[in-house]
Amino acid sequence: MGGIDDNTWPMPGDMAGKVITCKAAVAWGPGLPLEIEEVRVDPPQKMEVRIKILFTSICHTDLSAWQGENEDQRVYPRIFGHEASGIVESVGEGVRDMKKGDHVVPIFNGECGDCVYCKCEKTNLCEIFRVNPFKSVMVNDGRSRFSTKLGEPIYHFLNTSTFSEYTVLDSACVVKIEPQVSLKKMTLLSCGVSTGVGAVWNSANVKAGSTVAIFGLGAVGLAVAEGARARAASKIIGVDINSEKFTKDLSLDIGKAMGMTDFFNPRDVDKPVHEGWGLTVTLGIHPTPRMLPFHPMELFHGRRIIGSVFGDVKGKTQLPHFAKECMRGVLNLDEFITHELPFSKINEAFQLLLKGKSLRCLLHL
Amino acid sequence: MGGIDDNTWPMPGDMAGKVITCKAAVAWGPGLPLEIEEVRVDPPQKMEVRIKILFTSICHTDLSAWQGENEDQRVYPRIFGHEASGIVESVGEGVRDMKKGDHVVPIFNGECGDCVYCKCEKTNLCEIFRVNPFKSVMVNDGRSRFSTKLGEPIYHFLNTSTFSEYTVLDSACVVKIEPQVSLKKMTLLSCGVSTGVGAVWNSANVKAGSTVAIFGLGAVGLAVAEGARARAASKIIGVDINSEKFTKDLSLDIGKAMGMTDFFNPRDVDKPVHEGWGLTVTLGIHPTPRMLPFHPMELFHGRRIIGSVFGDVKGKTQLPHFAKECMRGVLNLDEFITHELPFSKINEAFQLLLKGKSLRCLLHL
Ligand SMILES: NC(=O)c1ccc[n+]([C@@H]2O[C@H](COP(=O)([O-])OP(=O)(O)OC[C@H]3O[C@@H](n4cnc5c(N)ncnc54)[C@H](O)[C@@H]3O)[C@@H](O)[C@H]2O)c1
Ligand SMILES: NC(=O)c1ccc[n+]([C@@H]2O[C@H](COP(=O)([O-])OP(=O)(O)OC[C@H]3O[C@@H](n4cnc5c(N)ncnc54)[C@H](O)[C@@H]3O)[C@@H](O)[C@H]2O)c1
Ligand SMILES: [Zn+2]
Ligand SMILES: [Zn+2]
Ligand SMILES: [Zn+2]
Ligand SMILES: [Zn+2]
Repeated sequence: MGGIDDNTWPMPGDMAGKVITCKAAVAWGPGLPLEIEEVRVDPPQKMEVRIKILFTSICHTDLSAWQGENEDQRVYPRIFGHEASGIVESVGEGVRDMKKGDHVVPIFNGECGDCVYCKCEKTNLCEIFRVNPFKSVMVNDGRSRFSTKLGEPIYHFLNTSTFSEYTVLDSACVVKIEPQVSLKKMTLLSCGVSTGVGAVWNSANVKAGSTVAIFGLGAVGLAVAEGARARAASKIIGVDINSEKFTKDLSLDIGKAMGMTDFFNPRDVDKPVHEGWGLTVTLGIHPTPRMLPFHPMELFHGRRIIGSVFGDVKGKTQLPHFAKECMRGVLNLDEFITHELPFSKINEAFQLLLKGKSLRCLLHL
Repeated sequence: MGGIDDNTWPMPGDMAGKVITCKAAVAWGPGLPLEIEEVRVDPPQKMEVRIKILFTSICHTDLSAWQGENEDQRVYPRIFGHEASGIVESVGEGVRDMKKGDHVVPIFNGECGDCVYCKCEKTNLCEIFRVNPFKSVMVNDGRSRFSTKLGEPIYHFLNTSTFSEYTVLDSACVVKIEPQVSLKKMTLLSCGVSTGVGAVWNSANVKAGSTVAIFGLGAVGLAVAEGARARAASKIIGVDINSEKFTKDLSLDIGKAMGMTDFFNPRDVDKPVHEGWGLTVTLGIHPTPRMLPFHPMELFHGRRIIGSVFGDVKGKTQLPHFAKECMRGVLNLDEFITHELPFSKINEAFQLLLKGKSLRCLLHL
């Protein structure tokens, strides 16, 4: 280890074509503590990549899945996790854009590059590898690449399953990153920061001088702030129902560093605070089957509502650009990692996020 | 009468400053037949205009209001109607952009030109004269300009109340039209056609080669088709649940003239028919308090939903341009008026729309 930017990592051993036995944090049911146990990871098949995860963090989407939200079709045992960075261990047949030793980040919202959606500039949803929380197997053969020591399948999550020392992904869900860039920071680009910044730069296309209100000041919300600051928004209003988020160490100071101009807790306010035109970009994952109590006439006051997956970022095409913007200092990622723990303390990291005490806790594998 | 384009109309008599007694169609309660009766119409106050209505037609928004939808705060007696054209009879203090004899169309979604909203290019919702179905009095003094012969107030509707031989509006809700343009056709621009065309040209900003699906093939829906045809959309799909709308005389032939390429009734189809990215522009007025059964995750398939009032048209600024486009033949309004009746048969005209047998029935006052 060591080297430039603490970013030189040992080449994974030569296990190409063989099953790797390693540690993973396995979910056995909704809300149950994850079990760190030995799992078997099959070699990558055609157009697949096996990567050694170096860092993973926990996004609220993992938390919701772990809690069993939107759960109808969930399968267990399962390996959650989608925000990570690592090194290619081996590649399957046909993979040309990556090789052993490359630095990579997984993307839960893949980009095959070939389908009609990938070829269309209007969407970042790949026909095959778009986000699907119910998908739990690989596209190639409809099977899992993980199994228990007894040979029972352990299922995938969000095309990624990064709570494991090794994981197999479709190459459409892996982005190669220049080796100079800090992999620790790149973990953030794997989901939360790209989603928040992309929501501002792509989905809402915020212009200089705009007002941006942010509901929810976790990593995604603060990345929205950082994206808005970089776009020279004149007013950045942070809203959260957890007053702890307005304490010095968490979103308050960090938010200020990201240009936030106003903060409030709607529970402390007794009148409505904004009205008029505006665009709402929905990023939050909403539990099914609860409907949003939404009356279409609300749109008649000039409101628009759109959803955004992964900040409308086309991962393979655009993430390397995002990484460069971070290197150039256009985006500042320094504040997002509030905690670091060894992988074995993953349940502790879940609790930190659940209680609103962390932005991102980086787990070291 | 007669003259160029049958469009030379006698100057209204000299009643400036006096109360005019005339006929109006008064609603006394939800769903009750309108009563044609004598009403008193006060002179226009500061920045108000009194106009003689020559033609009015019925938009589905009148029908919904008449049926008592969204009714909580409704007041009776009331004069409905907002799609019309006419001639200025007299103007109140301070009105500079119109004078007696001018050809005009009322707009239910006014444009004062002065407020922060009117000055903002992002919205066509005026701070003062935006659409408000519950508003029933004039802004100046919070009172009505209509009364019964006994002096009881009769309330306004949608800033306009055009089911009357004379009506008083704020000048922000009246647009002057060149005298060469057919007032009959301009009636359509007063609401339905501007809404539909504006939804395509402004709200959705449809580009050549796009696919447009239209749900509901009334005048508004067909105006969407006409706007899409004018923008060279390559596929225009008409959807309606009333199969009569696919008969020769109504939306089928008319729709074809407007470039519609496909037609279907969802009741005849048993599988979903579209998916992927797309923008939904909501124009329909939805009864309160019924919520739209909307799950935000639906937005995660690249869908966007926006509302559009009056097709995002800024009435006073942009309607004269629309009128010119019609004169130049960019938009063809010939097919929208499927029926014409004397004002006295207004209840018959309501039934035609209710049963889906007309697009617009022009009432002659
Ligand atoms: N669309 C996407 O592609 C995408 C990507 C990543 C995360 N997400 C979703 O974005 C959301 C945020 O993720 P995160 O990792 O930043 O979560 P987080 O747990 O770090 O932060 C969420 C914040 O929202 C606050 N909050 C909760 N309810 C609120 C309310 N009613 N009003 C205001 N604030 C409220 C919480 O107090 C917390 O500070 C989650 O729903 C996550 O699943 C979506
Ligand atoms: N947003 C605005 O500014 C604005 C302006 C004008 C009208 N409107 C609204 O637009 C709508 C259309 O007005 P219009 O005057 O053209 O009405 P219309 O009565 O002439 O036509 C409505 C059509 O919709 C069809 N329809 C009803 N339910 C349907 C469904 N579930 N699926 C498909 N088709 C369905 C009917 O059969 C009919 O052909 C109304 O709700 C009206 O209030 C809004
Ligand atoms: Zn995430
Ligand atoms: Zn694709
Ligand atoms: Zn209307
Ligand atoms: Zn205004």
